[in-house]
Amino acid sequence: MALQRLNAEDLAFFEQRMPGRVFSGAAISTDHMHDEMTEYGSFAPDAVLLAESAEEICAVLRYCNERRIAVTPRGAGTGLCGGCVAVQGGVVLGTERMKRVLEVDVRNMTATLEPGVLLMEFPKSLEGTGLFYPPDPGEKTATMGGNVMTNAGGMRAVRYGVTRDYVLGMDVALADGTLLSLGGKNVKNSSGYSLLDLMIGSEGTLGVLTRLTVKLIPEPKANVSLLLPFDDLDACISAVPEILACGCEPTAVEFMEREVIACAERYLGKRFPDASADAYLLVRLDGSSLQALEPSMAALTDLALRLGARDVLLADTDERKESIWNARGAFLEAIKGSCATMDECDVVVPRDRIADFVRRSAEIGRAESVRVCSFGHAGDGNLHIYVCRDAMDDAAWKRAVRAVMDALYDAAHAMGGAVSGEHGIGHAKRGYLRQSLGDRQLDLMRGIKRVFDPNGILNPGKVI
Amino acid sequence: MALQRLNAEDLAFFEQRMPGRVFSGAAISTDHMHDEMTEYGSFAPDAVLLAESAEEICAVLRYCNERRIAVTPRGAGTGLCGGCVAVQGGVVLGTERMKRVLEVDVRNMTATLEPGVLLMEFPKSLEGTGLFYPPDPGEKTATMGGNVMTNAGGMRAVRYGVTRDYVLGMDVALADGTLLSLGGKNVKNSSGYSLLDLMIGSEGTLGVLTRLTVKLIPEPKANVSLLLPFDDLDACISAVPEILACGCEPTAVEFMEREVIACAERYLGKRFPDASADAYLLVRLDGSSLQALEPSMAALTDLALRLGARDVLLADTDERKESIWNARGAFLEAIKGSCATMDECDVVVPRDRIADFVRRSAEIGRAESVRVCSFGHAGDGNLHIYVCRDAMDDAAWKRAVRAVMDALYDAAHAMGGAVSGEHGIGHAKRGYLRQSLGDRQLDLMRGIKRVFDPNGILNPGKVI
Repeated sequence: MALQRLNAEDLAFFEQRMPGRVFSGAAISTDHMHDEMTEYGSFAPDAVLLAESAEEICAVLRYCNERRIAVTPRGAGTGLCGGCVAVQGGVVLGTERMKRVLEVDVRNMTATLEPGVLLMEFPKSLEGTGLFYPPDPGEKTATMGGNVMTNAGGMRAVRYGVTRDYVLGMDVALADGTLLSLGGKNVKNSSGYSLLDLMIGSEGTLGVLTRLTVKLIPEPKANVSLLLPFDDLDACISAVPEILACGCEPTAVEFMEREVIACAERYLGKRFPDASADAYLLVRLDGSSLQALEPSMAALTDLALRLGARDVLLADTDERKESIWNARGAFLEAIKGSCATMDECDVVVPRDRIADFVRRSAEIGRAESVRVCSFGHAGDGNLHIYVCRDAMDDAAWKRAVRAVMDALYDAAHAMGGAVSGEHGIGHAKRGYLRQSLGDRQLDLMRGIKRVFDPNGILNPGKVI
Repeated sequence: MALQRLNAEDLAFFEQRMPGRVFSGAAISTDHMHDEMTEYGSFAPDAVLLAESAEEICAVLRYCNERRIAVTPRGAGTGLCGGCVAVQGGVVLGTERMKRVLEVDVRNMTATLEPGVLLMEFPKSLEGTGLFYPPDPGEKTATMGGNVMTNAGGMRAVRYGVTRDYVLGMDVALADGTLLSLGGKNVKNSSGYSLLDLMIGSEGTLGVLTRLTVKLIPEPKANVSLLLPFDDLDACISAVPEILACGCEPTAVEFMEREVIACAERYLGKRFPDASADAYLLVRLDGSSLQALEPSMAALTDLALRLGARDVLLADTDERKESIWNARGAFLEAIKGSCATMDECDVVVPRDRIADFVRRSAEIGRAESVRVCSFGHAGDGNLHIYVCRDAMDDAAWKRAVRAVMDALYDAAHAMGGAVSGEHGIGHAKRGYLRQSLGDRQLDLMRGIKRVFDPNGILNPGKVI
């Protein structure tokens, strides 16, 4: 049975169940028709429903499952692959109003929260507990639920791991409206197949998150950042494996090029603390005190100079740290602001191939005469490559961006990389996923999808 | 179609394909009929096949899948739930001869190995690289493949995580003999459903591991252990959450009781360094140097004394560390040696419930008049509870052990715990898994099983 569009009766049912939180026709905000990557088009759902409880989510799913109405779960809509966009109509089921932190359990070092809590809001609930939530994806206005469903990574993944590593439990509504509790507050588990890990990163195609329990760790009491300017990108990125292996346990190792920094300077109207070099590594160290960090700082400084850094700029004051990290945090918006439109590739490659890949991406851009900017998480091989449309007509841009993207994903695949390090697949990267994993893996994923969602109502047209 | 027993033609096929490595009838060692938990019975397979390559594993699976012959994958047979035992006949497919470490990639900090490499052998391949593999399950003669397929944990999980956290990639043979490559050397991934995480901990019911890529980290250059004697178990275990939250990043936090230590002393013929107390915590700290560890040691010492430790015994020499950790490592064998037979429960509970659970397990033992010993990973809520058969006739033992086990799993479930923290489910714990997770989760797992193994030949009668 094909997916059905909403009719007046369906709308009346939702309106009666969720009064004032059902939007259809002209009442649907255009914001709910796309995510942060407008390049991938705008798709109007039949209705947007803003849920306030797990019960409502289950009721909507039960109703839609019986009537074969597509349900596209959505958090804050900050994704970059069109994952939360209703490409096949039906309802967008938003969790943005479910933003309560339900419990901070200091003794077990866990927090339980609703999926719509924003990443930037969550730390406020932890103030005074001495605990913190390590994952640090760049987009702070994303929801925690969205982070889980894309297995978002972020800058601190080098030391602390990605979102997956911090999810201990979740309540998830299945396509038929059943609510399941997966995991809990236990920090170890070998009890059957990990349905929890299957849900994480499934982008709302297997269930809708209604509640989340995450692991917290003691907050490191001190941190410093070291900015390492290099004469060229090669020397810069070649230093990464040595830094990772030196035992200083970096929290973050980011790389950035002069051109992207200049974009950020223009965007923020602020100067970056250094303008001497073409390429930089930014390394953050966490520890129990500044004194405890000294041996690592000394070792890292020696090592960096030995590997060709022109200097080692220490950021140990809040002001200095902010000026550097704010620039880093603004890269995506700054690049966006520098061009008419853009496309993005979020591949991950083995860490020793980063320099090769960045070099290759520049070559690919030159071959197609488009501007390619990159920055990223050098410490974990996860690169963000932006293909920018400057002056170019529609047809030329479409052809060029396609050629560049194809070549980038081919290159990543040839280096043993994967399609997405942290942004997910959505609808935009499906072709590349199939190419990368092959038919058999995709068939297994489709088989799993059918087990969880036999009618195919959950986020259709995504991932697989 | 029901599962088929082997006939002469099948044996001839295997013998021709794997000459000298096919064992049937009286040639089957009794060791291949059970794992380390002999309490769960002995099951003779129709044949034992010892594979030497992925190609052989694929060929055996293809053959058995076409003929509906059960295949039970097996590593070193050191499991504790009967996971590698052919409870429904067919072939046991052993990977114990596939024990090559294929690559240690220092720049990417990964190692690629065959599944039969023993946990105790693997570190030899890393000598001189400055890298180490953190997971540290107690049973050192287990295979790395077995560790992955049960998601084994071990003592260092408090700081470093469990086996799952170190598996970056694997080659796995599906039931129909197709070889899949999952993951790779990338340290981040958001590219479709995590089939890798689904395989980890699946106990050979979804595929047979043929190759493994694990993550390594820089070896901490120094470590110390602190032994903290307490007057009673309550004070001992109540100290755990505070130790975890104090910021000293313990690698391991183990608890042990006088009675179990006495068992180990008798078993090893060696005295434990302290006999003053009823209950102990053993805390290990890792760091870049002894000097770097000093602030943590000082903080931990103060905290422990404040929380009622009678003393803080520092083990900073190899000899002292060995005498303590060897005792800890011998607990399982020592308890085994102290009784006619025993049963084991490997529950995990939220960390703040450990004291409750240990107290409850003692009460349950008393109520059924059986000796119950416990020790375990206090730092992650994973307890090993042993029910020992001393003088007791068969019928009384069977009744008592069942009553104790039922009560233990009920208690863990009521505390938000899970059936297994690290040993898995095998065939012995299936009933408790169903009780704990409920029908819907089990149905989803069965659905997934059918996607991967539609004929049900892979390790039948296990997990689900």
